[in-house]
Amino acid sequence: MNVIKGIAASNGIAIAKAYRLVEPDLSFEKKTIEDLSLEITRFKDALNTSKIELEAIRDKANSELGADKAAIFEAHLLVLSDPELISQIEDKISSERVNAEQALKEVADMFIMMFEQMDNDYMKERAADIRDVTKRVLSHLLGVELVNPSMISSEVIIVAEDLTPSDTAQLNRQFVKGFTTNIGGRTSHSAIMARSMEIPAVVGTKSATEDIKNGDLVIIDGLKGEVYINPTSEVIAQYEKEHIRYEEQKAEWAKLVNEKTISIDGHQVELAANIGTPNDLEGVINNGGEGIGLYRTEFLYMGRNELPTEEEQFESYKAVLEGMNGKPVVVRTLDIGGDKELPYLELPKEMNPFLGFRAIRLCLTEQDLFRTQLRALLRASTYGNLKIMFPMIATLDEFREAKTILEEEKQKLVTEGIAVAENIELGIMVEIPSTAVMADQFAKEVDFFSIGTNDLIQYTMAADRMNERVSYLYQPYSPAILRLVKMVIDAAHHEGKWVGMCGEMAGDETAIPLLLGLGLDEFSMSATSILKARSQIAHLSKKEMEDLADKALRMSTTKEVIEAVKAGTSN
Amino acid sequence: MNVIKGIAASNGIAIAKAYRLVEPDLSFEKKTIEDLSLEITRFKDALNTSKIELEAIRDKANSELGADKAAIFEAHLLVLSDPELISQIEDKISSERVNAEQALKEVADMFIMMFEQMDNDYMKERAADIRDVTKRVLSHLLGVELVNPSMISSEVIIVAEDLTPSDTAQLNRQFVKGFTTNIGGRTSHSAIMARSMEIPAVVGTKSATEDIKNGDLVIIDGLKGEVYINPTSEVIAQYEKEHIRYEEQKAEWAKLVNEKTISIDGHQVELAANIGTPNDLEGVINNGGEGIGLYRTEFLYMGRNELPTEEEQFESYKAVLEGMNGKPVVVRTLDIGGDKELPYLELPKEMNPFLGFRAIRLCLTEQDLFRTQLRALLRASTYGNLKIMFPMIATLDEFREAKTILEEEKQKLVTEGIAVAENIELGIMVEIPSTAVMADQFAKEVDFFSIGTNDLIQYTMAADRMNERVSYLYQPYSPAILRLVKMVIDAAHHEGKWVGMCGEMAGDETAIPLLLGLGLDEFSMSATSILKARSQIAHLSKKEMEDLADKALRMSTTKEVIEAVKAGTSN
Repeated sequence: MNVIKGIAASNGIAIAKAYRLVEPDLSFEKKTIEDLSLEITRFKDALNTSKIELEAIRDKANSELGADKAAIFEAHLLVLSDPELISQIEDKISSERVNAEQALKEVADMFIMMFEQMDNDYMKERAADIRDVTKRVLSHLLGVELVNPSMISSEVIIVAEDLTPSDTAQLNRQFVKGFTTNIGGRTSHSAIMARSMEIPAVVGTKSATEDIKNGDLVIIDGLKGEVYINPTSEVIAQYEKEHIRYEEQKAEWAKLVNEKTISIDGHQVELAANIGTPNDLEGVINNGGEGIGLYRTEFLYMGRNELPTEEEQFESYKAVLEGMNGKPVVVRTLDIGGDKELPYLELPKEMNPFLGFRAIRLCLTEQDLFRTQLRALLRASTYGNLKIMFPMIATLDEFREAKTILEEEKQKLVTEGIAVAENIELGIMVEIPSTAVMADQFAKEVDFFSIGTNDLIQYTMAADRMNERVSYLYQPYSPAILRLVKMVIDAAHHEGKWVGMCGEMAGDETAIPLLLGLGLDEFSMSATSILKARSQIAHLSKKEMEDLADKALRMSTTKEVIEAVKAGTSN
Repeated sequence: MNVIKGIAASNGIAIAKAYRLVEPDLSFEKKTIEDLSLEITRFKDALNTSKIELEAIRDKANSELGADKAAIFEAHLLVLSDPELISQIEDKISSERVNAEQALKEVADMFIMMFEQMDNDYMKERAADIRDVTKRVLSHLLGVELVNPSMISSEVIIVAEDLTPSDTAQLNRQFVKGFTTNIGGRTSHSAIMARSMEIPAVVGTKSATEDIKNGDLVIIDGLKGEVYINPTSEVIAQYEKEHIRYEEQKAEWAKLVNEKTISIDGHQVELAANIGTPNDLEGVINNGGEGIGLYRTEFLYMGRNELPTEEEQFESYKAVLEGMNGKPVVVRTLDIGGDKELPYLELPKEMNPFLGFRAIRLCLTEQDLFRTQLRALLRASTYGNLKIMFPMIATLDEFREAKTILEEEKQKLVTEGIAVAENIELGIMVEIPSTAVMADQFAKEVDFFSIGTNDLIQYTMAADRMNERVSYLYQPYSPAILRLVKMVIDAAHHEGKWVGMCGEMAGDETAIPLLLGLGLDEFSMSATSILKARSQIAHLSKKEMEDLADKALRMSTTKEVIEAVKAGTSN
């Protein structure tokens, strides 16, 4: 048995076999070949094995994911039987006496380059197909195994360096019981995905991919941040008990699904959910979400080759608004740039992307893109309770400019005779220190604030939250952060406006008592955190939490605050 | 005549011929050679021309810069006559029938790799020598001109993409009359260097290197941010007049060199200078600096192959303290990392270096390096009025830890019987928003603050000041920044501590009235801005500026603040 420590990123216990989602090493050396016919046979065998494998993947995709997903693999099979490609590779082996790997690579690279240079999206996709197929044939030539996450057909725990959005899109949620990754923190994509999939995760272990082999039995303890590799039967028994205890607690929380969120002394707040796509709605409803506090529209723009049309966007927004059945839905306009790149936008590389051209900064420049999104939102507005929110606002000038553009699009729609809801609330993310400091001025002009703590903390502390060498400065309970949160809440309440929070902090057990005390109106979190938070707040006194928050604001370090929360909430 | 616009980065007017400090294009293609003896002759000619050129550079360096600088070129000459290197290149030309460029590159690369892999600093330096010499021979083979800034021997205006610290170190200050660059802003290295050299500069022109040829007559208008290329005789005449007028104004300001800095209603402040090396002291004294508000110790660590010893550092600190003759000298401990890399520290690449592992974060981890610097500072403390300042402090924990380390080193010195000054003031840079927000808590424990506006603005606005797409957010006069400055000043004064400012804002004509009104005690700036600032403050009323600042704090945009300053200071 081996135990590795990481960051507890998503609650729960999972026990299953490991599935390594790790790119294999496909490097090789150019060689001179003596026996040419043997080499060509070797190449043909690899082709054939790839074909059999792809057919199986296609059939599985067809029956489980539908014909459109299967079409990708159909295209790959066509590449495999392209006589021109294959004959050129065989010719190269014979005429230059090089090994099959080298011949495959050189010929494929030539075709890829040729297709990529064509000014035609269809042809560019062919280049991607050839690249994928080449990788598969190469893996068989080298005798290494490619990962095929879409082929997972039994319960597994995913072990990876990190998980990208495209990795997680390919996973069959039915079989994935947990994640563990080498890098990342509580706010990385893999952690957020795990919480949204309601499966336990331990991230930032540094060495999971080194320590865990395919098929090892693994326990993920998402409460303590521990990963057990091939545990003893005692540990398994203990964790099976732990798992049952956790499920019982969840059952207890589940009773609160249709309840309001009210403190012990009668103060009501709203618990909302952060979502990425309309698919997340089911989880929100099952977990008793009172609204959507953050709909991240970036996912509509990602994993594709061109901008989504107004119509596509309209359908997504309408689906979420209708799905929430009149409950509030806060939609954040596009927050792209920084670490979130869109290949078809061709943004220049930046030295400090987190301090760069992203979100509203990009939208105010690329206005076509922004106006299309706003039109889709305005058209969807009659299907529910829509609130629109601009991200990364740093100055009032930016807010005013964005608001003017929204008003212009509204006028155009009205002129075209298209219905738009009256009184759509218009708010901003508070995630840049200047905006928190100027909250009193903003509060006169916006309808609401939503504090984005993930970014607000990293800018306030000047520390990249993804950089492990400075992650010790990512301190949500720092009195500096609490003071900024207080400035925002007080400024909003002074003007009769409401304040939400949609960063990770809003669902955090240690932060909730402080935020309740500071007067936060809406807490928006991963859907799976809602019931636990509702249970927690039901046991807290607003009045006592006000006193606790007051004390915390006058403290000098994060450690003092954490200790005060522990002392002030234990009874 | 052609006029290009840029950012006015250093005041004054310069008229001289252009000198392009631009790396030439040394790319070439591999070719098959028919006439081998011709190719070998071509190679020998290039070798010979390089040798003559290097000898001239060596002799000039020897007579003007001293034997140690000349030694570098001596080493280059040795490489040029290395028979093993040369015979291998000639062999390659003959045996492989490749062009001399290709043969030179392949053989040199092999030698470079070999030397670099040796675990020996001397051998590693040989790799750098071979790289330099290869570039020179290649330039002669290709018939392009290498830049030799150390050979400049007449008055010139430097035209460059950007200027790095190593570029400026090579310049002979006597002949450089001005700079113009394609990129950068008021706070980039080239701008700061120009102000420290007291020469006009226009940066961020985007196209200076494209528009200006070697030898073009160029006028740099560092007041308006304009560059005239081959101006008409009328323009030359007009600028010659302008130049005289500017010199007259400077003569007027020069009368204030031994004066105190006092507002019209009798409020006294201190005008100090930012320096990088003891060489800058002359400029500080000539410009009436009342102290050093920021001694950037990074330069001691840059442009070398290993850390400076305690002794070297001690000598530099002592020189500055003695040179200032009892006036206050604030020394900032090492602020390295981020965009300022030290090759010998081998720091990992970061995705967002401005939010990364730098300054005090690095010093608290690499304690040997930090302790050596502190010992050198403590030993020098008896030679003047030393104050020590820690950069990039984000939390009280960091300050306390740094202070503990300083105390430990002090104790050790005392035990060793080495004299250390009593009561060395210990302060911090306020350049991270959290620190400004927590200034009341810090003020109880530090002796002084120095507000670093360059970083404070970029973190508060979450905008990389070097990124042109978001540079519109670098707003020193934003009410958000003014509010943070006020928080810091009020917190310090409440505890009886003083506050300086050492960012670019402290010397800025529009900011000075506001800062005076907010109660700033010390303004630290480029030495060349001091007399102008003293003259400006002498014409301002502290009381009126307090009212102006009060109004500015309640404004909502930067534009309103700028207009209020214009209205409030014109009379």
